[in-house]
Amino acid sequence: MDYARLEKQMEFCKEIDKEKLIGRQTYLTDGSRKENDAEHAWHMALMAVVLQEYSNEEIDLLKSMTMMLIHDIVEIDAGDTFAYDEEGKKDQRERELKAAERLFGMLPEDQGAYFRQLWDEFEAMSTPEARFARTLDNIQPTMLNASSGGKGWSEKGVHIDQVMERQSYTGDGSRVLWDYSLNNYIKPNVEKGTIKSK
Amino acid sequence: MDYARLEKQMEFCKEIDKEKLIGRQTYLTDGSRKENDAEHAWHMALMAVVLQEYSNEEIDLLKSMTMMLIHDIVEIDAGDTFAYDEEGKKDQRERELKAAERLFGMLPEDQGAYFRQLWDEFEAMSTPEARFARTLDNIQPTMLNASSGGKGWSEKGVHIDQVMERQSYTGDGSRVLWDYSLNNYIKPNVEKGTIKSK
Repeated sequence: MDYARLEKQMEFCKEIDKEKLIGRQTYLTDGSRKENDAEHAWHMALMAVVLQEYSNEEIDLLKSMTMMLIHDIVEIDAGDTFAYDEEGKKDQRERELKAAERLFGMLPEDQGAYFRQLWDEFEAMSTPEARFARTLDNIQPTMLNASSGGKGWSEKGVHIDQVMERQSYTGDGSRVLWDYSLNNYIKPNVEKGTIKSK
Repeated sequence: MDYARLEKQMEFCKEIDKEKLIGRQTYLTDGSRKENDAEHAWHMALMAVVLQEYSNEEIDLLKSMTMMLIHDIVEIDAGDTFAYDEEGKKDQRERELKAAERLFGMLPEDQGAYFRQLWDEFEAMSTPEARFARTLDNIQPTMLNASSGGKGWSEKGVHIDQVMERQSYTGDGSRVLWDYSLNNYIKPNVEKGTIKSK
């Protein structure tokens, strides 16, 4: 029994609790408050189980879900950068790389390397699992925004061109889910004016 | 393309957002607030990835994680019943069965039946995956309680006999993790008096 290994693992498990304190810009479906990173990751991972049949490519679901569960861990140190915060995006990569070093570095080497690899794939969208994960990372907030009356978009004055740029790769993981999101979540909010089009 | 199927799946994905509003009695590690069901499920599922090597029995990790992600969905309708609420426990099973019917019934039949089976296994602890999931369901709050100074226990005046009864099956999924929790989280709080022993 390697107690040093177990100790590292338990310290990591305790540390990631902080992800529950990292706020996002998306309101819950009832609009009562904004969600946090841990809730978002849970939601995505469970959506992956339900919606896996719509992945464009065959995927290893366990790998894709694990990727989803860890994809925002770096934000414990780096904070959440809003999708349309052009200023914040400038040093986002640098902040997140440093965070990945520290956080995945808490784990035993084999596990730290595995999580780092998953996070790198997610960031680079370099595998089928990563492309499906990125699709859900984009679809889930459009579902929440639409359900809460579009106020996540309208409060920030988001323009349809920004949404379409942000969503430019959403179909790479699942054409079906991207079409669904576009027709059921995005277009109706352009029509309502909660997403700006002028 | 079966749009009726996709529509059911997306409605379910939207409905489960409500799990983020179901509060638990466990404080986050920093003690700032209590966690909710969605955060708890995310934490458990990710701990399962990190700690799988300590399962007493070989497990299908994907199955066990899926179980963890859905195990509290019934509480959207039935609410969270505190581990030491003897009154609330009386009709807990009835409330949760009704909730399972409605919530898993939103899904296409094949998926609803699969989730129901996973939830039944979890409740009955009838498979290795369920026993490991139940271990993490019990270990995670002891980790949080201990990290936040034991106030989750002391505020409720919890007695060590109640803790030991509640934890009587925790070692069934992982003896290693149960020993760790007992020695690092529970015993120190009995010594400090945050868990009562008289």
